[in-house]
Amino acid sequence: MSLSVLIAPSGFKESLSVNDVVLAIADGVTRAMPDATILSAPMVDGGEGTTEALILATGGKLHHTVVTGPVGRPVDSFWGELGGNGPRTAVIEMAAAAGLSLVPQDQRNPMLTTSRGVGELMLEALDHGVERILIGCGDSGINDGGAGMACALGARLLDRNGCDLPDGGGALGQLARLDISGLDPRLKRTRIDAAVNWHNMLLGAKGVARVFGPQKGATPEQVRELERGLVNWSKYLLTTTGCDVATAPGAGASGGLGAGLIACAGARLHPRFDIMRQYLDFDRLLDKADLVITAEGSLDGQSPYGKVPCEVARRAAAKGIPTIALAGTIGKGAQHTFDHGISAFASIVKRPCTLEDAIRKGEKLLRRAAEDAIRMLQVGQKLALR
Amino acid sequence: MSLSVLIAPSGFKESLSVNDVVLAIADGVTRAMPDATILSAPMVDGGEGTTEALILATGGKLHHTVVTGPVGRPVDSFWGELGGNGPRTAVIEMAAAAGLSLVPQDQRNPMLTTSRGVGELMLEALDHGVERILIGCGDSGINDGGAGMACALGARLLDRNGCDLPDGGGALGQLARLDISGLDPRLKRTRIDAAVNWHNMLLGAKGVARVFGPQKGATPEQVRELERGLVNWSKYLLTTTGCDVATAPGAGASGGLGAGLIACAGARLHPRFDIMRQYLDFDRLLDKADLVITAEGSLDGQSPYGKVPCEVARRAAAKGIPTIALAGTIGKGAQHTFDHGISAFASIVKRPCTLEDAIRKGEKLLRRAAEDAIRMLQVGQKLALR
Repeated sequence: MSLSVLIAPSGFKESLSVNDVVLAIADGVTRAMPDATILSAPMVDGGEGTTEALILATGGKLHHTVVTGPVGRPVDSFWGELGGNGPRTAVIEMAAAAGLSLVPQDQRNPMLTTSRGVGELMLEALDHGVERILIGCGDSGINDGGAGMACALGARLLDRNGCDLPDGGGALGQLARLDISGLDPRLKRTRIDAAVNWHNMLLGAKGVARVFGPQKGATPEQVRELERGLVNWSKYLLTTTGCDVATAPGAGASGGLGAGLIACAGARLHPRFDIMRQYLDFDRLLDKADLVITAEGSLDGQSPYGKVPCEVARRAAAKGIPTIALAGTIGKGAQHTFDHGISAFASIVKRPCTLEDAIRKGEKLLRRAAEDAIRMLQVGQKLALR
Repeated sequence: MSLSVLIAPSGFKESLSVNDVVLAIADGVTRAMPDATILSAPMVDGGEGTTEALILATGGKLHHTVVTGPVGRPVDSFWGELGGNGPRTAVIEMAAAAGLSLVPQDQRNPMLTTSRGVGELMLEALDHGVERILIGCGDSGINDGGAGMACALGARLLDRNGCDLPDGGGALGQLARLDISGLDPRLKRTRIDAAVNWHNMLLGAKGVARVFGPQKGATPEQVRELERGLVNWSKYLLTTTGCDVATAPGAGASGGLGAGLIACAGARLHPRFDIMRQYLDFDRLLDKADLVITAEGSLDGQSPYGKVPCEVARRAAAKGIPTIALAGTIGKGAQHTFDHGISAFASIVKRPCTLEDAIRKGEKLLRRAAEDAIRMLQVGQKLALR
């Protein structure tokens, strides 16, 4: 009996890219079940690796370019153009222009870092004539509320003397006038979707400055100043553009880039897996699948709260399709995933070993785990068909 | 669909007794498949734990007693009487009277240790009126060729002055006359089976003195003297009883106890799993099973060479019944077990961890692994039945 298997995993943090995960699982499935039809949906989250994964999944094209990096110096960057027959679509991961990994350790000052390069990538995509832009948020190194991006797209942020503000979230408290008359007119006729963590708020106790500022190197005093700046920024965005980013879900994504995207670029924000599913054509693939295999570094009691395996499994379960999950660690509370569509899970670990060992051999372990899971499943097929 | 599942594992060395393993797997299977019918065959090998496992499996009875221990002092010992409707049968594990664990570290001198207690257990079983005796060999601390046991049963070993030899393999070189006229007459009408490692030879390069003597504390000079003693012992056994123990497979089992059993007790030696299968009624259980679950501490390239999982799986495969194997370590070459009847395997390890951790949590890990394997198998059942 030939099965169609949809492989829809996350990447394994600090170990395997989502494409590596897809390939390893596909290899393992095929070893145990040579006649299986493999479908793949690399479940990227908008962060690092999103562009590469979508390009590979759709047969698209990568464009290399140089943009203003988060600390103001030029950085090598890239954006992608999706393949397929749909509208011409650019995919941009904000981390490629303003990611934390582009900020040298000794310059981790979110008062100064800027999202300007993200806007430059958008302009380049527009210059290539794309009709849609998908922006992945995640892994950011900035806290400027998307102000830098807005400037790159043509907005002007002025202080009370009419001078342009310097880049960085630290200056937003001095904002006295926002001029959006120079925004690139192509933005209006381009559909811009952004994949964000829906729970990232711009302001307040759960706002981006307080939650993420310290991770990006902010001192307590700087956190307070960044918060004041974002409050000011949101006030001018509201009065100038009519967009209330203070309460919009996801506006705090990627150092507040979400806010700038909504208000200055006319973007629609989406919970990351919802929009990625659309771009990955996930639902159509699911309709063709008999079985789903998902995976993540860890499967545990947190998995039902927005992690890839349960997001995937819930949708499969709604169509009556079983999902099996593979993970480096099957942790405490993993059995709760049974209530969220996971039918069975297995660890990729095959013996007592160190975490370093498991990470180093991750690809091989994952391939074997997929093969072993399919063999176990085949025992059930055999028993059922007797 | 209700399944009959035969649980036929080995114990996990230094971690879980075979009964613990059976119970943990049964628990896990039942959690995933509450209507499963559980059959169990604890695949003991004759060594430590054999009596307890067979007593539990058959609903038999344990007899506590005191016998001469391997260093000549009394030790608390035991033997079992199997339950069920068959002939009254005693089960004796030689390790309960002459095991290495009964020899204090500072007295590990195989020149002196004796199997006398094994004969005493046999006499006690005979006094209880048993019709059969099953003797499990393994984990021995002696190297006396079964001479001590023979003495307990009524034989006399005399030196050239007609004096009784002292106990221990070191004295066998002085044997000048073997008198078996006093052997207990009940031995002749009692069926005695012994479970041995079929490859344990009494003499020569692969003989018991050279292979196992050093493990039991013998110096190189003592190994040579033990070998000379066993050569002499086998010569007198041949001339007195007509049994040629020098070449009999298994005669070297348990410090040569096999030799004494054949020649002085009229025992039949059997490859351990062959005879254990008979006493466990394995083949009848197998006929009732839809699925077999086996387990051992490690599954690897050595498993096909006489280890429980492949012994079990080969017999199941011959009847078209699939076997799945659970193991603490899925090691190098484990995929070779697919050629020996194993259909699928899984590790009990669920995350990177130390060996100590895995051993400490062995029971829980095993229960979960059984549950997880059944869930994976159920995905296959579901797919097949769509």
